[in-house]
Amino acid sequence: MFFASDNAGPAHDAIIAALATANRGYAMPYGADPIMDEVRAKIRTIFEAPTAEVYLVATGTAANALALACYAQPWQTVFCSPVAHIHEDECNAPEFYAGGAKLTLVGDGAKMTPDNLRSAIEGEETRGVHGPQRGPVSITQVTERGTVYSVDELRALCDVAKSFDLPVHLDGARFANALVALGCTPAEMTWKAGVDVVSFGGTKNGCVGVEAVILFDPDKAWEFELRRKRGAHLFSKHRYLSAQMNAYLTEDLWRLSATKANANCARLVAGLKEAGVTFLHDPQANIVFCSFPRAAHQRLHDAGAVYYVWSGALEGDDPDEMLEARLVCDWSLSETQIDQFVALVKPA
Amino acid sequence: MFFASDNAGPAHDAIIAALATANRGYAMPYGADPIMDEVRAKIRTIFEAPTAEVYLVATGTAANALALACYAQPWQTVFCSPVAHIHEDECNAPEFYAGGAKLTLVGDGAKMTPDNLRSAIEGEETRGVHGPQRGPVSITQVTERGTVYSVDELRALCDVAKSFDLPVHLDGARFANALVALGCTPAEMTWKAGVDVVSFGGTKNGCVGVEAVILFDPDKAWEFELRRKRGAHLFSKHRYLSAQMNAYLTEDLWRLSATKANANCARLVAGLKEAGVTFLHDPQANIVFCSFPRAAHQRLHDAGAVYYVWSGALEGDDPDEMLEARLVCDWSLSETQIDQFVALVKPA
Amino acid sequence: MFFASDNAGPAHDAIIAALATANRGYAMPYGADPIMDEVRAKIRTIFEAPTAEVYLVATGTAANALALACYAQPWQTVFCSPVAHIHEDECNAPEFYAGGAKLTLVGDGAKMTPDNLRSAIEGEETRGVHGPQRGPVSITQVTERGTVYSVDELRALCDVAKSFDLPVHLDGARFANALVALGCTPAEMTWKAGVDVVSFGGTKNGCVGVEAVILFDPDKAWEFELRRKRGAHLFSKHRYLSAQMNAYLTEDLWRLSATKANANCARLVAGLKEAGVTFLHDPQANIVFCSFPRAAHQRLHDAGAVYYVWSGALEGDDPDEMLEARLVCDWSLSETQIDQFVALVKPA
Amino acid sequence: MFFASDNAGPAHDAIIAALATANRGYAMPYGADPIMDEVRAKIRTIFEAPTAEVYLVATGTAANALALACYAQPWQTVFCSPVAHIHEDECNAPEFYAGGAKLTLVGDGAKMTPDNLRSAIEGEETRGVHGPQRGPVSITQVTERGTVYSVDELRALCDVAKSFDLPVHLDGARFANALVALGCTPAEMTWKAGVDVVSFGGTKNGCVGVEAVILFDPDKAWEFELRRKRGAHLFSKHRYLSAQMNAYLTEDLWRLSATKANANCARLVAGLKEAGVTFLHDPQANIVFCSFPRAAHQRLHDAGAVYYVWSGALEGDDPDEMLEARLVCDWSLSETQIDQFVALVKPA
Repeated sequence: MFFASDNAGPAHDAIIAALATANRGYAMPYGADPIMDEVRAKIRTIFEAPTAEVYLVATGTAANALALACYAQPWQTVFCSPVAHIHEDECNAPEFYAGGAKLTLVGDGAKMTPDNLRSAIEGEETRGVHGPQRGPVSITQVTERGTVYSVDELRALCDVAKSFDLPVHLDGARFANALVALGCTPAEMTWKAGVDVVSFGGTKNGCVGVEAVILFDPDKAWEFELRRKRGAHLFSKHRYLSAQMNAYLTEDLWRLSATKANANCARLVAGLKEAGVTFLHDPQANIVFCSFPRAAHQRLHDAGAVYYVWSGALEGDDPDEMLEARLVCDWSLSETQIDQFVALVKPA
Repeated sequence: MFFASDNAGPAHDAIIAALATANRGYAMPYGADPIMDEVRAKIRTIFEAPTAEVYLVATGTAANALALACYAQPWQTVFCSPVAHIHEDECNAPEFYAGGAKLTLVGDGAKMTPDNLRSAIEGEETRGVHGPQRGPVSITQVTERGTVYSVDELRALCDVAKSFDLPVHLDGARFANALVALGCTPAEMTWKAGVDVVSFGGTKNGCVGVEAVILFDPDKAWEFELRRKRGAHLFSKHRYLSAQMNAYLTEDLWRLSATKANANCARLVAGLKEAGVTFLHDPQANIVFCSFPRAAHQRLHDAGAVYYVWSGALEGDDPDEMLEARLVCDWSLSETQIDQFVALVKPA
Repeated sequence: MFFASDNAGPAHDAIIAALATANRGYAMPYGADPIMDEVRAKIRTIFEAPTAEVYLVATGTAANALALACYAQPWQTVFCSPVAHIHEDECNAPEFYAGGAKLTLVGDGAKMTPDNLRSAIEGEETRGVHGPQRGPVSITQVTERGTVYSVDELRALCDVAKSFDLPVHLDGARFANALVALGCTPAEMTWKAGVDVVSFGGTKNGCVGVEAVILFDPDKAWEFELRRKRGAHLFSKHRYLSAQMNAYLTEDLWRLSATKANANCARLVAGLKEAGVTFLHDPQANIVFCSFPRAAHQRLHDAGAVYYVWSGALEGDDPDEMLEARLVCDWSLSETQIDQFVALVKPA
Repeated sequence: MFFASDNAGPAHDAIIAALATANRGYAMPYGADPIMDEVRAKIRTIFEAPTAEVYLVATGTAANALALACYAQPWQTVFCSPVAHIHEDECNAPEFYAGGAKLTLVGDGAKMTPDNLRSAIEGEETRGVHGPQRGPVSITQVTERGTVYSVDELRALCDVAKSFDLPVHLDGARFANALVALGCTPAEMTWKAGVDVVSFGGTKNGCVGVEAVILFDPDKAWEFELRRKRGAHLFSKHRYLSAQMNAYLTEDLWRLSATKANANCARLVAGLKEAGVTFLHDPQANIVFCSFPRAAHQRLHDAGAVYYVWSGALEGDDPDEMLEARLVCDWSLSETQIDQFVALVKPA
């Protein structure tokens, strides 16, 4: 019963098999391997973006920090949610890669709204050379609270950004989970809405460790390549990144995996609802924030369930006190595990 | 016949198998996986360094840049060979990670000598606050020209560094190749000689992509962890790094692989000597720099041999003109390939 | 009638005279001039801090950014008010000098409170290596809204910082204005309260361009010197910085100048109160935020008064609409100018 | 007898007087002062460059580092002499401002030649994304050894740079000394030769502390302004920088001052030649490197002469041992001082 994160489950067998298959003979290093050509072609097709440039790195933080650095000058500020991964979970990597740029936190929730984005942008660059200058907007899809921007919401945010001539980055560490939740196309969720650069996640959705950065503006390609190398993120044995991403994009594995993760989450949510659990955010993909009594937490803990108690302490006198939990479902959870979890939440 | 680099051959089956084995169930992310405990224990044993701290990253440039950044202040200069990987092949990654530190090139060869190291160190910090301050010494072992520092040579360089209170970094991208060439212990080649931090390579010696940074001074550990995360080099699914390194260190795979690579190289060298080839550097591990006529290069090229023509152009009128080649042997080369290569070099 | 800023008035004649006096013969460069010895001694006496180290730079942003960089690691975050100069008016200089550190905005006013400081600090470093680490606290005294922390308030903030082992920086661009407002000693307003490093302003209080950085911990001195040089803030003809600061500290010029500026402000406030003006913040030093009708703004504008209309537009149809103004008084304003300004605010 | 540097003499009375004159009433801060308009107009006229943008900073290192940062990407390398100020005397400021760019040292003398510049440029960027990329060329005029590039030599270097599409920076800390030595126009020594950006020095030639950065490409202007602010080099009371530069450019003070300094140097050289002194470099402006016996050094030292003994130690047994000296002449030296110096060098 592992609900701590989608970064702790196993990779798909197909991914491991692809590594084994790629492990034959010699292959040109540093991205010149033929599997990368396949990856590039597949992503261009999937995104309906024949001139997009595609690069692979091994961590989501690398994808985000490198993508942003191509669009954020050191004297600018990046607009993002106060709970964005780039703000809370990357130990200043975006600031490091962007040479000391700032982050401006927009609104007070996981989702930015066009109004609070506009207001945040208008709040900067009112002081000539003195204040930080306006930089890119970074949108997290799925948000860090498990909600999903609709295509209309994405477009509205991008429209605000564009009205100030600002580029837009999409942190898609859980891109596939969002996509299957929305039932739209990758193009609709990205460049058609106004997104310039995407961190397209594989790691959390069943890969070993691979993320694609998709640059819809190929003019940024060479700068990205130099930044990737300088950031020490260019793999010599690149074929093992290519092989993962290639398998991920083959026979719709990426979509099927996310569909399974979201379905797992839906089953969990249904069970929890039945058990009378309160939800803090609308669980639209594979992440649940909810609240239930300490006694239930303790039963789960004793049974070996692993997840984050998001607020409050497991230890405590009052068995009825409500504690918040973050529960993340990956593709590999079994229905049995989910049902067992739910059963432990329910009062005896 | 692939002699271009040891980063283009396949990984050992044992490494791939270890990935598959690690791919079961859930594992705590970010280095808290139990396999990492095994890795740490093994490295401490192998290096006779029970308090050393050990961290894994996926690229050699990351290992070097992060290790140096822990020891080089932004206003300092790092002393290294003019052909060091950190100078020539990392697109300013060390400067980036060390916040704008400088590199001072020592001597004019692949090997630094105590005299030219001392002279370079004395040449800096003669101007108070105005010039760059003296920072760490970085030694590449195997050197980028295929030569190997003896333990005495390493100790002599470290002694010079220590006489100025400067720390020493060892770039051991080909650590194992050097070790088996010298027949010494890992401790003798590192901390016993005076090395403070090691980049211990796995990638070029049969892994998929994994390098260990070994800090003999555990006081630097937390800073390293923060720098690794901030550099976007902390893997969430860390077990796949651990599994590679663990397999690499199991049943002496790392030494056997290097032994095989060096033996391949020795066979190549013997054959080339017989063929009358001139060597530009003494090939002591798995890299050869040598010179032979254009006609031989063309024969090799036509037969599909892949390697770097280091100086001169393959195309040209004079078949007798001597062109330099860099030839790198990895563990996976067959004797047949080597003999075939040599046969093509020999004049008909 | 110049109320736009205290950076636009003339310098004291004594400061200019000191430049002329210093302009004789040769003087050792880079801070080795004998006038600097006098400055250091005077500041140590004034601050009752015999081991403090003192350095001069020419801009307040340099003082702040260099001081903070000595105390903030690149993976940390600096705690400050959302209207702090370091956040709003330095174009990411603190982030640049601190290698990409972050700023965490505390509360929503010009003054931080112990409670919201504690809450902000507790909010960081809850995610191990993933989030930014806790760094220094930076307090602005006089605040950017013209209010002044009492000595007790300063001590309470420092106590919170110390309870987390965090260092404290005081941005004293208007140090003297705060000091005379409080009637305390420099020691009470700094190290006795728990401040580790001070930006001690001269420029806004009648100098040409000079700020002292006072490090109560002399162990940071050499790092500061290297950072100052690397930041290109070390003056070769340093005597002209020394001469300004020396004159500023002679015969209490610094206190007298601030006393005059504050008195100018008090006269302005008294007049405005009488004129029925509303104040947005309590004007405790030499800065006033207040609100009065557009018609009055237009009269002032037509008469050549210079100041910032802080919110709202001078142009507009409704003469009764209230517009906010920021008014800053320097030492050089005459009572006539102030009274003339007030007279123009008053309705006919 | 102060020959240590041209940064230790007094400023011209006209410069101090200009500060006093500027010190009247209010002036808009941050470069919006009307004196700056005069400065801009004068420099455009002097340089025959009506669209050039002009900015003032207070130190030569700031001028160099900011100018270079506008032209050097973090993954590039700057080509300069191994004795360039930017390499030896700026404590990594250029690397800091350029985000971790590298410096490639060209040749082994103070003057670069077209051949060794071309060879250095060709030596970089031979490794695709792996090595540092080619960046700007920085030329020091007067060189750090007191020699002066002819206009033809400058043009030849710029031609090499342009043949690789690289921009050219001129470090003109002693611009005026070079100009009067060559007898050419400022345009001929800069943009007509191919220079893109100039650090135009005032400090070493009789100002208090002011340098102009002249950007012949106005498209870089806004970036420069942001970098200057972010580097904390934008003066609030900017009029005192403007006033210095304005006085410097009035009635040819800048040229007269350099003419005097160079004449002082010529008198010194003539005297030393007569005294049999050996010169290490051809003294073409106001700096002399020469060699004479320890006994003479000791006589000078006892008489209070201040200068750098460049190699060898003043203390020593052998009175005949030759020690090298660096002697710098500023405008303020008297003929008496020079003659007295020469007299002390001459054997009794």
